[in-house]
Amino acid sequence: MAVQTVATPAVDLGPAAALSCRECGHRVPLGPVFACEECFGPLEIAYDFSAYDTEKLRARIESGPANIWRYAPLLPVPADVADKPNLNPGWTPLVKAGRLAAELGVTGGLFVKDDSGNPTHSFKDRVVAQALEAARAFGFTTLSCSSTGNLAGAVGAAAARAGLRSCVFIPHDLEQGKVVMAAVYGGELVGIEGNYDDVNRFCSELIGDPAGEGWGFVNVNLRPYYAEGSKTLAYEICEQLGWRLPDQLVVPIASGSQLTKIDKGLKELIALGLVEDKPYKIFGAQAEGCSPVSAAYKAGHDVVRPQKPDTIAKSLAIGNPADGPYVLDIARRTGGAVEDVTDPQIVDAIKLLARTEGIFAETAGGVTVGVTAKLIESGALDPSLTTVVLNTGDGLKTLDAVAGTGLTATIRPNLDSFREAGLA
Amino acid sequence: MAVQTVATPAVDLGPAAALSCRECGHRVPLGPVFACEECFGPLEIAYDFSAYDTEKLRARIESGPANIWRYAPLLPVPADVADKPNLNPGWTPLVKAGRLAAELGVTGGLFVKDDSGNPTHSFKDRVVAQALEAARAFGFTTLSCSSTGNLAGAVGAAAARAGLRSCVFIPHDLEQGKVVMAAVYGGELVGIEGNYDDVNRFCSELIGDPAGEGWGFVNVNLRPYYAEGSKTLAYEICEQLGWRLPDQLVVPIASGSQLTKIDKGLKELIALGLVEDKPYKIFGAQAEGCSPVSAAYKAGHDVVRPQKPDTIAKSLAIGNPADGPYVLDIARRTGGAVEDVTDPQIVDAIKLLARTEGIFAETAGGVTVGVTAKLIESGALDPSLTTVVLNTGDGLKTLDAVAGTGLTATIRPNLDSFREAGLA
Repeated sequence: MAVQTVATPAVDLGPAAALSCRECGHRVPLGPVFACEECFGPLEIAYDFSAYDTEKLRARIESGPANIWRYAPLLPVPADVADKPNLNPGWTPLVKAGRLAAELGVTGGLFVKDDSGNPTHSFKDRVVAQALEAARAFGFTTLSCSSTGNLAGAVGAAAARAGLRSCVFIPHDLEQGKVVMAAVYGGELVGIEGNYDDVNRFCSELIGDPAGEGWGFVNVNLRPYYAEGSKTLAYEICEQLGWRLPDQLVVPIASGSQLTKIDKGLKELIALGLVEDKPYKIFGAQAEGCSPVSAAYKAGHDVVRPQKPDTIAKSLAIGNPADGPYVLDIARRTGGAVEDVTDPQIVDAIKLLARTEGIFAETAGGVTVGVTAKLIESGALDPSLTTVVLNTGDGLKTLDAVAGTGLTATIRPNLDSFREAGLA
Repeated sequence: MAVQTVATPAVDLGPAAALSCRECGHRVPLGPVFACEECFGPLEIAYDFSAYDTEKLRARIESGPANIWRYAPLLPVPADVADKPNLNPGWTPLVKAGRLAAELGVTGGLFVKDDSGNPTHSFKDRVVAQALEAARAFGFTTLSCSSTGNLAGAVGAAAARAGLRSCVFIPHDLEQGKVVMAAVYGGELVGIEGNYDDVNRFCSELIGDPAGEGWGFVNVNLRPYYAEGSKTLAYEICEQLGWRLPDQLVVPIASGSQLTKIDKGLKELIALGLVEDKPYKIFGAQAEGCSPVSAAYKAGHDVVRPQKPDTIAKSLAIGNPADGPYVLDIARRTGGAVEDVTDPQIVDAIKLLARTEGIFAETAGGVTVGVTAKLIESGALDPSLTTVVLNTGDGLKTLDAVAGTGLTATIRPNLDSFREAGLA
């Protein structure tokens, strides 16, 4: 377990009361720690929501800003968070996907939660925004992470906005386009001679070393705060449905954290009385080339056997997902499932979503749409129920996946040539 | 002048009452026409806002959706527009740019209106959304345009969402990345053997031919409707400032339409009593490699001499801007100016905006930020006044501009190597 030696000032993180172990319930004060000192289980935020009146809370949320800070009373952030420089992600469109529904045979209402509208065009802005507030609260001056893509941009941009130093670690041989996207924000961008596992190992070493003092690694020592950002997806979906729970949600699985936090967010809304207490089903989506949770689900296992990823859905390519067991539990408990699709099915689903709804998703969005189609075919997902599918990223960042797409015709600049091509 | 032969059903475009010639004031009924039959001047929308009560209108806007349709009472769209499938762009962040302000020496408040948050990540979604509603009203079944970039994606995506056919014309030898971005939405994407001028000439031919019946060219026969979308930038900026006019705006110039419509929008808000009647200055921004309006401004001319574009700011590279004379008039009338910056200055400005505010702009955003810096240096822009700078597009679409950006260090995966690199 990494305990930071940095001096922690008085911490105001709003309703966050303590850190609590998800396994044994042991509580510790808020701080930059992520693993239980008793059982090494993951720490998560324990809140004090006891003072809230349901209708006053609802009114406060509805009159809040058009970003995640409308939910500040439910997040580990200070009450004045909206006044501080941050990327202010969220309140992304919940698209009523009538044309996609018609293609898939969904009659109960199909919606795409399109997180490509976030500032750096992925859902990572939601989690990094929380980590940034925690970093400020703990007096950190450097925001850091290991990454091969979306997270690097989100951390670089958020640190730039806030005036913090950033230092992002990536494998040294990443594609040039991804390096440019991460480097443009002007922070330190350090290539590590090794693969992504080497980068991660190095970051763990750095956190335990004096050289890492004052560093907030968003998904390591700030992970309990960071992870809470995914709850905002659940809040927004329900509020955008008119404070209703969807019947079914299809969520991508990388580490599994997002899916578990969406479940947590839905349960909070029920407990707070903001939505009615009714069943909902959560479905997890993976790429076949990195499907450790799907494989465990299908085999009826409670534990997840690590895989070596080989898929175009690189933003989901975590072969040893930390929250895998929790995902299995949620899928089974809610009556959902975990399913996977092949790379060609991912590409087909990206194109299907684009041509029916005008949403250009990254590969992770192809995974959720493709899995939705597969779950309908198998009967696991009920097409007569209200269903929300997540798109967590932007197709502009994974152009290679659809590189085969091109011109439908080439003509000379005259009407005869136009007619010959059968375009009239 | 192109008069469509398509049958026009009864047209409900909300407060839009007629088309009116900007030059001679001649009025014609709403229809898919764009040039005055009397004087060949440009037609624009004439509204009937006479029934509006200021405070009721303000309340209606404030309770509207978090997109451009909150301003439906001020746009050429039916009252139920928000219920129809459309990309629903707008309500993008107005970022209080404190760190950029400090670098530029702005003390009166500096804001960046960041339109990269739109569905296809450029301001073009605003104008295409209007054109789509007009296309529906006129019974068009195909949405079309000529384009080399942002517009192609916006038209393809909007048509997909609405279930219209799209047919986009581009030069056949465009970069593969741009072709993919335009092709993914599944409409017709036709390469024309020729340059952009040839593509445009062909589109004009097609509009006048029976083969073009039922086709809405967003920026040709639907241009009067399309252009109104830019007004929403003015509306949002003022509402996001708390229903206040900014003192100074810096707006990019391609055809000049956006700048003229922002001025129109500000004047409408004043006339409607939604903001106080006070002076504001509008500054136009161009790239030196395509600066016909800036050149005319500096020479004191009222007309614009066409140029052959040669700049990395391709989304602004219109050498013969249709609204150039109107831009000159607005800049002079409001006490603004028109200025240009070199390609290296554009790149520097993109990096400056990214490292101070975490906003990764396309080259057009580099133009406005660079011009802002230059106008402050020259004294034309007053740093003690509230200033809004537009970023109209996304850096992910013009990665080549900052391709030189890269790793700040490469190290081996251990702490010694980290320390040697001076990163601790």
